[in-house]
Amino acid sequence: MQITISSTFDAGNVEVIKADNPNDIQLKIRKDTESDFLQWFYFRVQGAKDTACKLNLLNAGDAAYPEGWDNYQARASYDRITWFQIPTQYNGQTLSMELTPEHDSVYIAYFAPFSYEQHLDLINEAQQSPKCTLECIGHTTQGRPIDFLKIGDDDASKKKLWVIARQHPGESMAEWFMLGLIERLLDEEDATALTLLQKANFYLVPNMNIDGSILGNLRVNARGINLNREWAEPSIENSPEVYYVKEKMRETGMDFVLDVHGDEGLPYNFISGIEGIPSFDDKLKQLTDSFIDNWMAINPDMQKEYGYPKNEPGKANLQIGSKNLGEEFHCLSQTLEMPFKQNANIPDEELGWSPERSIKLGDSLVPVLLSIVDDL
Amino acid sequence: MQITISSTFDAGNVEVIKADNPNDIQLKIRKDTESDFLQWFYFRVQGAKDTACKLNLLNAGDAAYPEGWDNYQARASYDRITWFQIPTQYNGQTLSMELTPEHDSVYIAYFAPFSYEQHLDLINEAQQSPKCTLECIGHTTQGRPIDFLKIGDDDASKKKLWVIARQHPGESMAEWFMLGLIERLLDEEDATALTLLQKANFYLVPNMNIDGSILGNLRVNARGINLNREWAEPSIENSPEVYYVKEKMRETGMDFVLDVHGDEGLPYNFISGIEGIPSFDDKLKQLTDSFIDNWMAINPDMQKEYGYPKNEPGKANLQIGSKNLGEEFHCLSQTLEMPFKQNANIPDEELGWSPERSIKLGDSLVPVLLSIVDDL
Amino acid sequence: MQITISSTFDAGNVEVIKADNPNDIQLKIRKDTESDFLQWFYFRVQGAKDTACKLNLLNAGDAAYPEGWDNYQARASYDRITWFQIPTQYNGQTLSMELTPEHDSVYIAYFAPFSYEQHLDLINEAQQSPKCTLECIGHTTQGRPIDFLKIGDDDASKKKLWVIARQHPGESMAEWFMLGLIERLLDEEDATALTLLQKANFYLVPNMNIDGSILGNLRVNARGINLNREWAEPSIENSPEVYYVKEKMRETGMDFVLDVHGDEGLPYNFISGIEGIPSFDDKLKQLTDSFIDNWMAINPDMQKEYGYPKNEPGKANLQIGSKNLGEEFHCLSQTLEMPFKQNANIPDEELGWSPERSIKLGDSLVPVLLSIVDDL
Amino acid sequence: MQITISSTFDAGNVEVIKADNPNDIQLKIRKDTESDFLQWFYFRVQGAKDTACKLNLLNAGDAAYPEGWDNYQARASYDRITWFQIPTQYNGQTLSMELTPEHDSVYIAYFAPFSYEQHLDLINEAQQSPKCTLECIGHTTQGRPIDFLKIGDDDASKKKLWVIARQHPGESMAEWFMLGLIERLLDEEDATALTLLQKANFYLVPNMNIDGSILGNLRVNARGINLNREWAEPSIENSPEVYYVKEKMRETGMDFVLDVHGDEGLPYNFISGIEGIPSFDDKLKQLTDSFIDNWMAINPDMQKEYGYPKNEPGKANLQIGSKNLGEEFHCLSQTLEMPFKQNANIPDEELGWSPERSIKLGDSLVPVLLSIVDDL
Ligand SMILES: [Ca+2]
Ligand SMILES: [Ca+2]
Ligand SMILES: [Ca+2]
Ligand SMILES: [Ca+2]
Repeated sequence: MQITISSTFDAGNVEVIKADNPNDIQLKIRKDTESDFLQWFYFRVQGAKDTACKLNLLNAGDAAYPEGWDNYQARASYDRITWFQIPTQYNGQTLSMELTPEHDSVYIAYFAPFSYEQHLDLINEAQQSPKCTLECIGHTTQGRPIDFLKIGDDDASKKKLWVIARQHPGESMAEWFMLGLIERLLDEEDATALTLLQKANFYLVPNMNIDGSILGNLRVNARGINLNREWAEPSIENSPEVYYVKEKMRETGMDFVLDVHGDEGLPYNFISGIEGIPSFDDKLKQLTDSFIDNWMAINPDMQKEYGYPKNEPGKANLQIGSKNLGEEFHCLSQTLEMPFKQNANIPDEELGWSPERSIKLGDSLVPVLLSIVDDL
Repeated sequence: MQITISSTFDAGNVEVIKADNPNDIQLKIRKDTESDFLQWFYFRVQGAKDTACKLNLLNAGDAAYPEGWDNYQARASYDRITWFQIPTQYNGQTLSMELTPEHDSVYIAYFAPFSYEQHLDLINEAQQSPKCTLECIGHTTQGRPIDFLKIGDDDASKKKLWVIARQHPGESMAEWFMLGLIERLLDEEDATALTLLQKANFYLVPNMNIDGSILGNLRVNARGINLNREWAEPSIENSPEVYYVKEKMRETGMDFVLDVHGDEGLPYNFISGIEGIPSFDDKLKQLTDSFIDNWMAINPDMQKEYGYPKNEPGKANLQIGSKNLGEEFHCLSQTLEMPFKQNANIPDEELGWSPERSIKLGDSLVPVLLSIVDDL
Repeated sequence: MQITISSTFDAGNVEVIKADNPNDIQLKIRKDTESDFLQWFYFRVQGAKDTACKLNLLNAGDAAYPEGWDNYQARASYDRITWFQIPTQYNGQTLSMELTPEHDSVYIAYFAPFSYEQHLDLINEAQQSPKCTLECIGHTTQGRPIDFLKIGDDDASKKKLWVIARQHPGESMAEWFMLGLIERLLDEEDATALTLLQKANFYLVPNMNIDGSILGNLRVNARGINLNREWAEPSIENSPEVYYVKEKMRETGMDFVLDVHGDEGLPYNFISGIEGIPSFDDKLKQLTDSFIDNWMAINPDMQKEYGYPKNEPGKANLQIGSKNLGEEFHCLSQTLEMPFKQNANIPDEELGWSPERSIKLGDSLVPVLLSIVDDL
Repeated sequence: MQITISSTFDAGNVEVIKADNPNDIQLKIRKDTESDFLQWFYFRVQGAKDTACKLNLLNAGDAAYPEGWDNYQARASYDRITWFQIPTQYNGQTLSMELTPEHDSVYIAYFAPFSYEQHLDLINEAQQSPKCTLECIGHTTQGRPIDFLKIGDDDASKKKLWVIARQHPGESMAEWFMLGLIERLLDEEDATALTLLQKANFYLVPNMNIDGSILGNLRVNARGINLNREWAEPSIENSPEVYYVKEKMRETGMDFVLDVHGDEGLPYNFISGIEGIPSFDDKLKQLTDSFIDNWMAINPDMQKEYGYPKNEPGKANLQIGSKNLGEEFHCLSQTLEMPFKQNANIPDEELGWSPERSIKLGDSLVPVLLSIVDDL
């Protein structure tokens, strides 16, 4: 049977150069829309049941973060529910993945995808809770509704907690995280969530970059814009996703924000803070420390040994979401990074960092926020 | 809150003329790709919770089958799992649907959709059975794999039974039917399926028109072609979906084929036969009668009082799938039509004809085929 | 680790003679309450993970139906959901079962049990349908409610169809059958069930012998009485289960009754009829034939080649339920027998005759009854 | 229809005095086996659909903890999955419960039961994890296996953490708690559990009093013995459940033990400590404080404002499990009490304290133990 490779579905991304020899299937990652970024891939292999395949991504070396390929293992799935790691090598230019498929059709991806249909199901489900409101606060450049969830009530005296995710659409773990967070917040039998919602309302954007997600992009929206460099001056034309969310933030106010991301390189979860913003002060420092330390205590998938270097005072790039918002709202504003690879402290040889672990990390944000909400 | 209407998702179809007044939301159905057909619609309404809405499809009178609107009720859903009927009126030009949404976001469609993601899940699941093989037999004009399932083994002495569905992509009930059929055929504890598979192999195309389905078309593929008029001379360029399937049929041979459709007008399930093909004979007549009568006995959702008029002898249009195949393979070849409206004999006021009923009709094909397989 | 064998749970039945040697675990089946019948066994083995065990039922030769052990395979389960066959030998006196357990605790039984908790769940669920009524029509000798279900309405012009099960408590497949029947009858999206309920009301006793089931008996109730010999003169004292059901039958009337059983010996499903009752006539003969033939056509797990010899005219034992009721109500009255072994026509080497197959047989009674209801 | 009340099932407990008048159904709670304790009740009411019923427990005033009836609401269920509160009054002698059943059969209980079948399912499921071992460590006085679970490995350098539950069988919330704990410990994708199991092994007895649970007792086993007064001198004859568990504790050693209970009176979760044991010291005091404070931070269903008065130094009753074990093993040894009523700090008007909340409290023990494991 002939090998066929396709990517003509939600978030699909691959170009086929040559697929006639299972031992040397030659592929390329397509560039992001209107952009030179590339790294996300997602495709389906057919016709290779019980055949040893070597799948080579020839232009892996041109990726946005080539260091992301070191010690990286690609994910594969037959049912797109369980995604398992497959042997993967990087030689400085080509990423080579090995698999002998057990079934006629198998999917391979950079990370377990979270499709637009899954996004719609997530918000369809959430909105049915009496404590959740779903609102269209604007449209993407391709005309899709920007879905905004409010969990709580209209009590303006409560703390205003924002969580946004997936500015970078290829970082699908960010939306799995949101799934875990939202399900726990809406759980009527969860004392931690119930108590937190006595003190705070939540404002959530489960997917900041819907067009880019569907297009199979790593970093940009349908206009080729990296949304996480647009927060200083978002535009309706090029970055409506940021423009309308920031407008909403000004309407609601903000006492906390978490911007949820994935990191291509580091095999750890970590927080990237706002030490470099002009108004950073002792109170923000203490809040940052409590936030991270409490999270580590509740869920050891969080750690603080590894991460990005902290900005020098005053040197933060205020075009970046968390820095910009921390400065404007003078509140605890953090970026969460989850790995594409592993949490090397608690590795899972079979799955790597996974949807399940991302969901649980989102779930565990609830007790962390309860532990600091009174100080926000 | 402002009302927002969108259709920027798999199978979405609507154009918004005016949505500022809930009592007179003005919409149009977009034409099928490269075609004048129109009838399928599918869109999402946001911002109208607890607001009485009247949604008017202004160009309903220009639909492919305007008689389809008589006594038709549109379907709505909050979770896209349960689709319920809403009050719907047709005045000869405009189709008016009334709904006071209980939640922030609600979907409205011509019939419960079956998305490409659901299609992929269906075949992903099926292929994991040891008795099922999934094969890409060619590509659509937009480059998507044509998914072909074989259920059974390689015993050439067994009867060869084909079932194909959804040549007309807007007839989504056809793929719900396939879901029911496939799940039963693969059920290891079903004596009827086990016995039938001792005598026959199955060759299945769950969705003949994948591009058209994603595009939100009623009747045509991405080239504007009505596939069910292509069987006499399919072309790789314009109707590869038919071309490759017919090629496969010649490769496997055929003792039976059912082509699964939906009918816009009649509120019944019925079979459309091949009385008008040149080679129609007594044996085919007896098989046709047994097939229909046995199905009626097993599942009263089938009936034979209402249906299309039979072709005069020799007058069949051999461009149509079932007629063409009946003539070429000289076998029992039938078209199944399910209603968009109801089975008026056993109406369901809440759901109308539904995915659940379509699934059960597909399931019930198994004992029907067992009752006639030895005579095929 | 020491091997421990216990049966101190619902329907448990075994006596341990000696369990110190895994290669020769000596057990006996306990006699039914106040009775010499014995055949049902059900016990739990602990402490034998990864140890090859030979479990010998020393008094198997004293069972009610020793021929039941020929070609019989015992069932085992780790989770009591999936019950699989294990190698089993019978030497004329001892039944020897071999198993190397994969887990610390494993259950072994004559057939997949259906516990009282499952019974209560079944009727709890059923009663929540608006078309189902649950009634306590009397108490067993141990004081448990006799649960009677009515499915349908109060329209006295409809046909009155009775199905009762598990007079012999060890025949647990009979209650799995009822589960399949009841779920289909209450399915709001099943056209066959909906149509049948237009024509008929159902009167159901899912478990005729609740005490005996809990006690782990094969054939008798808590007074040692074989209920299926009590129908001529049931007594409140010794056979209240029959007494109250028969009283209810006289109250409702009856146009059909099926009494659901298991058979220890024959590896087939079959119907045992009422040819020997005094009032047997041509109409009953025709109904019997249609009933069996139609069932065979719809579900090939039914057959008529193998079964009990038919009674000579007038020679039926009117103490037996189906015969007694056929005579009193002059209606189609049948006993269904399912195998403890296999359906040898469509064997399942892994599971043998199973809960799943029993459920599907119950489900398939619905179209069979629809095919004859007008003639009842 | 006549009202029928029954309790002839696992954990059932009630005596019917008079049930002919729905407005005054007179019932009594049966005493525990060989004991004067009484408080647990669990029964089924049939024949009262749509009828306003008043169910009076005439001897409520003779209960073990009459203060347990103040502000208590009985639980009812149609499906025994969802248990909801019903209006309940106590006049100093009679507990009166009001309900107009929506279905033919309804269950009423002191608290959501956890049956022996559920117990068996819990351990059947757990043992299938490669990191869990199930062992029979002895038998109850009625001959049932005492089920002991070990989660972890054989690394003797790890901390030894014990959790036992349901010495008092009527405190069914204790086994719901164990379900939550066990499921989380075995979750392969839970970083907190994975990390804790790097440092500790778990030794668990999900139900210390299986006989009493089946018998529908509040406080004692089948010999009438309150197991939680047997720890100083347990006997094989009267308290084998304690005898064999304590023997196992000496075999494994112990660095921590939690004994899980329910409290009839206080509407809170709380910890009862070992301040009164002879060897209580600063380290134990600090551990106790950390344990409680960390639990409160992670799950606000825990609190420390309300609870039992602390024992004076040296005044602890060493017959009680947690005190006895704290003294013998000189480790953190605590009793957890959950309410039968509510957590009045976070009340749930519909369900009261519930299985779901008990499960989540058990789940949240995992991060609490991780926070202190290095200090144990
Ligand atoms: Ca990033
Ligand atoms: Ca059609
Ligand atoms: Ca029998
Ligand atoms: Ca207690």
